[in-house]
Amino acid sequence: MHAGRIRSLLERVRKGTLSTEAAMRRLKHLPYEDLGFAKLDSHRHLRRGFPEVVYGEGKSLPQILAIVGRMARRGDAVMVTRVGADVYRKVRARHRKAMYQPDARVITLNVPRYERPTQGILILAAGTSDVPVAEEAALTAEVMGNSVERAYDVGVAGIHRLLDQKEKLARARVIVVVAGMEGALPSVVSGLVDVPVIGVPTSVGYGTGLKGTAALMGMLNSCSTGLMVVNIDNGFGAGYAAALINRAPR
Amino acid sequence: MHAGRIRSLLERVRKGTLSTEAAMRRLKHLPYEDLGFAKLDSHRHLRRGFPEVVYGEGKSLPQILAIVGRMARRGDAVMVTRVGADVYRKVRARHRKAMYQPDARVITLNVPRYERPTQGILILAAGTSDVPVAEEAALTAEVMGNSVERAYDVGVAGIHRLLDQKEKLARARVIVVVAGMEGALPSVVSGLVDVPVIGVPTSVGYGTGLKGTAALMGMLNSCSTGLMVVNIDNGFGAGYAAALINRAPR
Amino acid sequence: MHAGRIRSLLERVRKGTLSTEAAMRRLKHLPYEDLGFAKLDSHRHLRRGFPEVVYGEGKSLPQILAIVGRMARRGDAVMVTRVGADVYRKVRARHRKAMYQPDARVITLNVPRYERPTQGILILAAGTSDVPVAEEAALTAEVMGNSVERAYDVGVAGIHRLLDQKEKLARARVIVVVAGMEGALPSVVSGLVDVPVIGVPTSVGYGTGLKGTAALMGMLNSCSTGLMVVNIDNGFGAGYAAALINRAPR
Amino acid sequence: MHAGRIRSLLERVRKGTLSTEAAMRRLKHLPYEDLGFAKLDSHRHLRRGFPEVVYGEGKSLPQILAIVGRMARRGDAVMVTRVGADVYRKVRARHRKAMYQPDARVITLNVPRYERPTQGILILAAGTSDVPVAEEAALTAEVMGNSVERAYDVGVAGIHRLLDQKEKLARARVIVVVAGMEGALPSVVSGLVDVPVIGVPTSVGYGTGLKGTAALMGMLNSCSTGLMVVNIDNGFGAGYAAALINRAPR
Amino acid sequence: MHAGRIRSLLERVRKGTLSTEAAMRRLKHLPYEDLGFAKLDSHRHLRRGFPEVVYGEGKSLPQILAIVGRMARRGDAVMVTRVGADVYRKVRARHRKAMYQPDARVITLNVPRYERPTQGILILAAGTSDVPVAEEAALTAEVMGNSVERAYDVGVAGIHRLLDQKEKLARARVIVVVAGMEGALPSVVSGLVDVPVIGVPTSVGYGTGLKGTAALMGMLNSCSTGLMVVNIDNGFGAGYAAALINRAPR
Amino acid sequence: MHAGRIRSLLERVRKGTLSTEAAMRRLKHLPYEDLGFAKLDSHRHLRRGFPEVVYGEGKSLPQILAIVGRMARRGDAVMVTRVGADVYRKVRARHRKAMYQPDARVITLNVPRYERPTQGILILAAGTSDVPVAEEAALTAEVMGNSVERAYDVGVAGIHRLLDQKEKLARARVIVVVAGMEGALPSVVSGLVDVPVIGVPTSVGYGTGLKGTAALMGMLNSCSTGLMVVNIDNGFGAGYAAALINRAPR
Amino acid sequence: MHAGRIRSLLERVRKGTLSTEAAMRRLKHLPYEDLGFAKLDSHRHLRRGFPEVVYGEGKSLPQILAIVGRMARRGDAVMVTRVGADVYRKVRARHRKAMYQPDARVITLNVPRYERPTQGILILAAGTSDVPVAEEAALTAEVMGNSVERAYDVGVAGIHRLLDQKEKLARARVIVVVAGMEGALPSVVSGLVDVPVIGVPTSVGYGTGLKGTAALMGMLNSCSTGLMVVNIDNGFGAGYAAALINRAPR
Amino acid sequence: MHAGRIRSLLERVRKGTLSTEAAMRRLKHLPYEDLGFAKLDSHRHLRRGFPEVVYGEGKSLPQILAIVGRMARRGDAVMVTRVGADVYRKVRARHRKAMYQPDARVITLNVPRYERPTQGILILAAGTSDVPVAEEAALTAEVMGNSVERAYDVGVAGIHRLLDQKEKLARARVIVVVAGMEGALPSVVSGLVDVPVIGVPTSVGYGTGLKGTAALMGMLNSCSTGLMVVNIDNGFGAGYAAALINRAPR
Repeated sequence: MHAGRIRSLLERVRKGTLSTEAAMRRLKHLPYEDLGFAKLDSHRHLRRGFPEVVYGEGKSLPQILAIVGRMARRGDAVMVTRVGADVYRKVRARHRKAMYQPDARVITLNVPRYERPTQGILILAAGTSDVPVAEEAALTAEVMGNSVERAYDVGVAGIHRLLDQKEKLARARVIVVVAGMEGALPSVVSGLVDVPVIGVPTSVGYGTGLKGTAALMGMLNSCSTGLMVVNIDNGFGAGYAAALINRAPR
Repeated sequence: MHAGRIRSLLERVRKGTLSTEAAMRRLKHLPYEDLGFAKLDSHRHLRRGFPEVVYGEGKSLPQILAIVGRMARRGDAVMVTRVGADVYRKVRARHRKAMYQPDARVITLNVPRYERPTQGILILAAGTSDVPVAEEAALTAEVMGNSVERAYDVGVAGIHRLLDQKEKLARARVIVVVAGMEGALPSVVSGLVDVPVIGVPTSVGYGTGLKGTAALMGMLNSCSTGLMVVNIDNGFGAGYAAALINRAPR
Repeated sequence: MHAGRIRSLLERVRKGTLSTEAAMRRLKHLPYEDLGFAKLDSHRHLRRGFPEVVYGEGKSLPQILAIVGRMARRGDAVMVTRVGADVYRKVRARHRKAMYQPDARVITLNVPRYERPTQGILILAAGTSDVPVAEEAALTAEVMGNSVERAYDVGVAGIHRLLDQKEKLARARVIVVVAGMEGALPSVVSGLVDVPVIGVPTSVGYGTGLKGTAALMGMLNSCSTGLMVVNIDNGFGAGYAAALINRAPR
Repeated sequence: MHAGRIRSLLERVRKGTLSTEAAMRRLKHLPYEDLGFAKLDSHRHLRRGFPEVVYGEGKSLPQILAIVGRMARRGDAVMVTRVGADVYRKVRARHRKAMYQPDARVITLNVPRYERPTQGILILAAGTSDVPVAEEAALTAEVMGNSVERAYDVGVAGIHRLLDQKEKLARARVIVVVAGMEGALPSVVSGLVDVPVIGVPTSVGYGTGLKGTAALMGMLNSCSTGLMVVNIDNGFGAGYAAALINRAPR
Repeated sequence: MHAGRIRSLLERVRKGTLSTEAAMRRLKHLPYEDLGFAKLDSHRHLRRGFPEVVYGEGKSLPQILAIVGRMARRGDAVMVTRVGADVYRKVRARHRKAMYQPDARVITLNVPRYERPTQGILILAAGTSDVPVAEEAALTAEVMGNSVERAYDVGVAGIHRLLDQKEKLARARVIVVVAGMEGALPSVVSGLVDVPVIGVPTSVGYGTGLKGTAALMGMLNSCSTGLMVVNIDNGFGAGYAAALINRAPR
Repeated sequence: MHAGRIRSLLERVRKGTLSTEAAMRRLKHLPYEDLGFAKLDSHRHLRRGFPEVVYGEGKSLPQILAIVGRMARRGDAVMVTRVGADVYRKVRARHRKAMYQPDARVITLNVPRYERPTQGILILAAGTSDVPVAEEAALTAEVMGNSVERAYDVGVAGIHRLLDQKEKLARARVIVVVAGMEGALPSVVSGLVDVPVIGVPTSVGYGTGLKGTAALMGMLNSCSTGLMVVNIDNGFGAGYAAALINRAPR
Repeated sequence: MHAGRIRSLLERVRKGTLSTEAAMRRLKHLPYEDLGFAKLDSHRHLRRGFPEVVYGEGKSLPQILAIVGRMARRGDAVMVTRVGADVYRKVRARHRKAMYQPDARVITLNVPRYERPTQGILILAAGTSDVPVAEEAALTAEVMGNSVERAYDVGVAGIHRLLDQKEKLARARVIVVVAGMEGALPSVVSGLVDVPVIGVPTSVGYGTGLKGTAALMGMLNSCSTGLMVVNIDNGFGAGYAAALINRAPR
Repeated sequence: MHAGRIRSLLERVRKGTLSTEAAMRRLKHLPYEDLGFAKLDSHRHLRRGFPEVVYGEGKSLPQILAIVGRMARRGDAVMVTRVGADVYRKVRARHRKAMYQPDARVITLNVPRYERPTQGILILAAGTSDVPVAEEAALTAEVMGNSVERAYDVGVAGIHRLLDQKEKLARARVIVVVAGMEGALPSVVSGLVDVPVIGVPTSVGYGTGLKGTAALMGMLNSCSTGLMVVNIDNGFGAGYAAALINRAPR
């Protein structure tokens, strides 16, 4: 359409029905995306089918219902993160196809089915308290068309539990490692493998009130190579990045 | 070789020249890597040819010479980061083939030539002060077999400089974005593209003495998806991770 | 009036009905503002008509009612910030003319109408969550006699949304930029324009618990010139400063 | 020139020597600034004559000489901040017209003379240690065409020194207040006046090692209205913003 | 009494009814305060009559009732800080003489009346939100036998309000200054007087979430002499120290 | 003198040689201190004879020589803190009467002799590394007319060393306690006595790089009553405040 | 059992019923703990009988009931920390033998009785608010087979209370010291004794909101030797470490 | 000796040559340690023969020479930590028997030889940069009479290097783990063993400037039991505590 607008403008110049000066004036006022950056916007294309994400924490129920309603009317796929089962019940009363993943605390609606999801993503969680963030990452990657392997409760305090996962570690192409407390697990994992590792610090902890900062700093200061980090509790971000990596070189 | 040791041990059991109990004792004392994790150690294979990295900052000249000498005798490829031209001159006096990249402040030795390096890595730097870290990332990715595109001085204070890079942005498969100050560039970049972006905060700044913390926090709190972060000034880590991503799905 | 007191005192000295010593004693005990700083107090004159501001957050309903009641009896214009609709209903039950702006969460009472408000203030918000702070700034500037332009949801993760605002950016004389997360928007904006920009970090964020500190640090460390900062969530302060700037050189 | 390129392109379309499709392709690849944002770039025009600023701290002498040389060859006005007299001597050996302001520690070159500089900027410094930052602000505003008033050593520990400045306070249109230690001066000043106040915290202090953070926090948390803040020691930024404010409404 | 125990022990040694060795053993096991430090314990004597202080914040109602009951049975004077009127009602139901100061949020019981309280303590509060902490300080000093002058709402944003208090400032022998936000008031006050000033930062603030840290840092970094600081919101500690100072040289 | 100016002005009004209006104008422009606050300025009288204090740290030798020279020409008493013996030698070359206290690292000049200094100040230091700060406090109190008792190396790691000081503790009227590391000594001391205690945290420490923050926080959070705090390493401030307290109630 | 698997595998090789290659393949896939680290796993043996620990804070009642139920079915001993009496009542409704220690806020189930618990652990608490953490430490050490001595309310503000504990201090072999506020008690204690001291900072405090950080920093920076630290409020960790120390050299 | 003084005093009372009152007076003034706490002072006895420790960092050469000289004259054993070989040469010029351990950077003098040092201490270092701190710990434990095992360069980035140490881990009775960066090694180690583990964070790091804080926080927040922590780089403290633990239960 935008291309159409430019083409029609140029056509009118060519036909002489629009003066050069008038064409210049209009070109300057065309919306940004008409002019050259459409090419970059494959991002948007990628998202077609990919749910719009609503960060549910701190939003009121009426706000969530309003946003979901508006998206659903447009036919968009929707993903609402950080919400309880009570919110889901209200959403489902209006949108019968809405689904809920209680571990990830995520509502999905109109998410497409993938016939042959992409293999290669492994998600590890250090402790059981890290599972909600891990599941948020997993679900995000799944709705982006990936099949995700999981291995939970494999923290460094019992290193054999991690080492027992050698098969999964060996076949992963990108690994998301979710860990709170001291956040040491990503260091150990990225020392064992040669694929990209995404560390997700969690706000799980015992008495410091630092809410994930210790884990974040631990991951940033890791001496292992190949490790990158996202923000505290940002399972969505990690899952999204893992999905981008898993299809990276085309 | 290790496999050989286990096989020969089992052979001796089979032949009856080693008792079951003696075999058990020996199995328990075999080095760790003989037993099952060899498979994971493709990391090591990857590194074959890849330089061993020596973090030069804070090391004395004799320490650096000793480490490089030991590696060179083993025939290892060597990469020494964060060193000045003066250190290079001393290293070169002993190792005639040592090379120096003054922007990256990196010495390399015995690094293999790649006939057809992999395309796909783009490295951006917000300001000229960020170039040394960016070059450290670039050189790391290059010695791991990649061809790297660069675009420097494209910070957000003059957004058109970034937007002019649209061709490079469009053909990248993974992007490393190096930025100090407020660290906003990675957010803007990952909002423009749909490939993984690795943010590298730098300690470049103006009067707060926070030494990169503002940039780090800015990147972690970005509202753009697909952005991951490594530690402040960690160009090596970003280049390494970018190289892993660029070959990720096989 | 004060001037009157001094004049009458001097008159009585002149007439001899007050001794020099008695006059000196009285001069020393005159209230501060009687003596010379009246000139500076145009601030107060400015405020004539300008609402007294009550910071509502953390105050109980009885406290707010008492303060508003006292002001209203004096005939002062009143502005109560950070209050919900429930507080408004109670205030309105006593003060029929009280008005409420739900986005800004501000109650106003006895605010003067401006026939020809001053043009020139533009207020940008990066995300929808930043709107309440932006509206607090906007409303503050409006009750000080300005007409305010707005552009919301123009964050850096989709830079084209900002660039589409070029008309508004071009005609602003001072710009307030409200942004949470990494707080990068003010940097980009002040790189695009040549008017003063006031950054307002907000406590909107995703998982760090730093409550606006990342955004604040990002703005302080910006490499763009012409950018100043107020405290986290301080929409009132930004609107007030913008109004002062918008009338600065007379 | 850019406008020329678009015009000539349109002319060729009009004449039929360039097809519509070819024109579209070329339009998409024109540099960003050709397309619509030229209007915003008055920033650049403002800068015409205004010195390019080189942040000298942490740069080596050869780096500074190279940058200054390149700018001087282009005929640009140059301003180098945070440099000692020794650097100046070397610069002057090559550029005879270079000048040095030892209090501000700034080198200037090719800065234009203003016949009738704009009145209205007042710069206050709390203590004598704050003078270099204050002078950096003053010099910046002066090279941007302003006449600057100064009042130094007027900190809150002897409030009468400030109150004695009432004439200067009363005639200022924008005030820059530079203060270290507890940073209280901007609060007191903005309580006395009704013009915009820009606080500049300095890293001057006594034993906490916080390097200006206390002053910065004090200014951000001020209960006075009309106060904005720039980063620690950022005299340049404050002077620049003051100059923008001093010409703001046209 | 303790002296009595030692004397009787020595008497028995003298009379030969206790062996030297047995006396040595017993001396070693006497309670600490029997042996020489009684002299220092005038602290305890001071407290005779002075209420035992119970920090009420965070304690449950049953806990408070239990502690107050135990003290009341011993006939101790009691002071319970940081409690609401609801707690007071429950306490008073059991202890008819309990009194409540709602501004200070303090319950007192069995506090002695002072015929002629000591003059000399002045307590200033910057804003009305600082009053509870100021009243906690005032009440503490009063129950220790002092008559306290007050001047509230004299913050630096309107410096004339402070300067109007010159009479009170001039007759104070020790001044407690309570201030939140940027905490600048103590600096200004201690620059005006030549008596000891005790700064009390409060957790009153506007959007930083730093809960008094800015005010605390401001006071610690003050350039005024004669200023000391207690912890955030610690009105009790400031009142107690002021009372000690007000009787210091005997 | 100032009083003289006002009186003469009033006399001229009385005589009719100055009009009421002219008198009003002049009153408004009299320097601040002419008008009523002279009374507060006993501070200045206190300082008569008391040395002007020059904070030497970070000042260059020429700066120190210039300041001292200017003061000496006015006949002021001078105290230069935080300077080495080398600085003293240069100062003494110009000012033969200058004296140096190497432990305190303080130069004094023209300080008055006190016939009968005031008793009552005790200064404790936890470790030998805290002695310079303690001596700065002691010397400050001494030049203000006090006789100071000292007890050094009495830190909490060997509590008997402190308890052995019971005589000194018992006769002090105000105690300055200087301590680095964990800063626990002031808590213990103020638990033993019933006089005001001033804690001075020092930047002495072992490996955390927090430069006195741990000690400062320890002192602020003390559960002992009667304890106040000054900034890290601020021996001068503590000695000054102790001197004010030691003469407080007259 | 595992040893049995390896032995039987080797037996089959010896007998020729399993080929060398097949044995190698199986060896590689044996679980980690079969291969050599069983020896280290005495940890697990130690725990036999020792309760599995469930960190109750932040867990919902259904979660706690589910975990306890699963453990109880396995016959494991269970210890649930940080839970209130209400949780206990629900647990006890299902598990009649569950016991509750209200001071420690710990539920225990199936914990073994020790005929002759080990002597040597002393647990000190500075204030009454520190008792819950101290009791958590004590109970942990008791269920690991120790007899624990206690001395509470012995903080440094009244040092004689600590010194009166000299008998207990003298017979301890390892001491846990629990303290909030400034956290000075461990320093004093480890200066008095020659056994290992474990400091536990608590989040008890007065107005700083730092939640134990001051106490933690105080302990880490102690100048006393022999002092180690665990995390804030981590009574369980301290009790566990004390139990390990109390049996250390065998 | 002290006991002798008390006994002789009591004897004189018994004989009637000293009155009861005089005896009481003298008892009150006896030095602290004469009265009951001698028993606790086995600490001092322990130290007999154990070197006095001088913390060399930040001390000037003359200061070190003076302290060592004074100790050597008393015949004390001496240990000077954190000094270079240049300091050693100067010390040795005066004290021929002084010895130097360059890895630990420690000078020792008059340290006793132990015929049969105690077994049981293992010291691990994550990287080669951690070795100086590890050696400081090792040397401290050795001069206290222990034989120390070492395993260096066993960080978590290559977990097999640690697992290969299983023999040493299995026979240790207390383990000191020295690690910088993310500080994850102590967590992994204390998950593998059932003896006390002392974590020592080091200031080794890569670009954050946090100087060991990340490692410290990682260790404090570890989810492994049995782990205690000392301050950053405090090898001496860790070695001392390990020696106390290694002899704990007698």
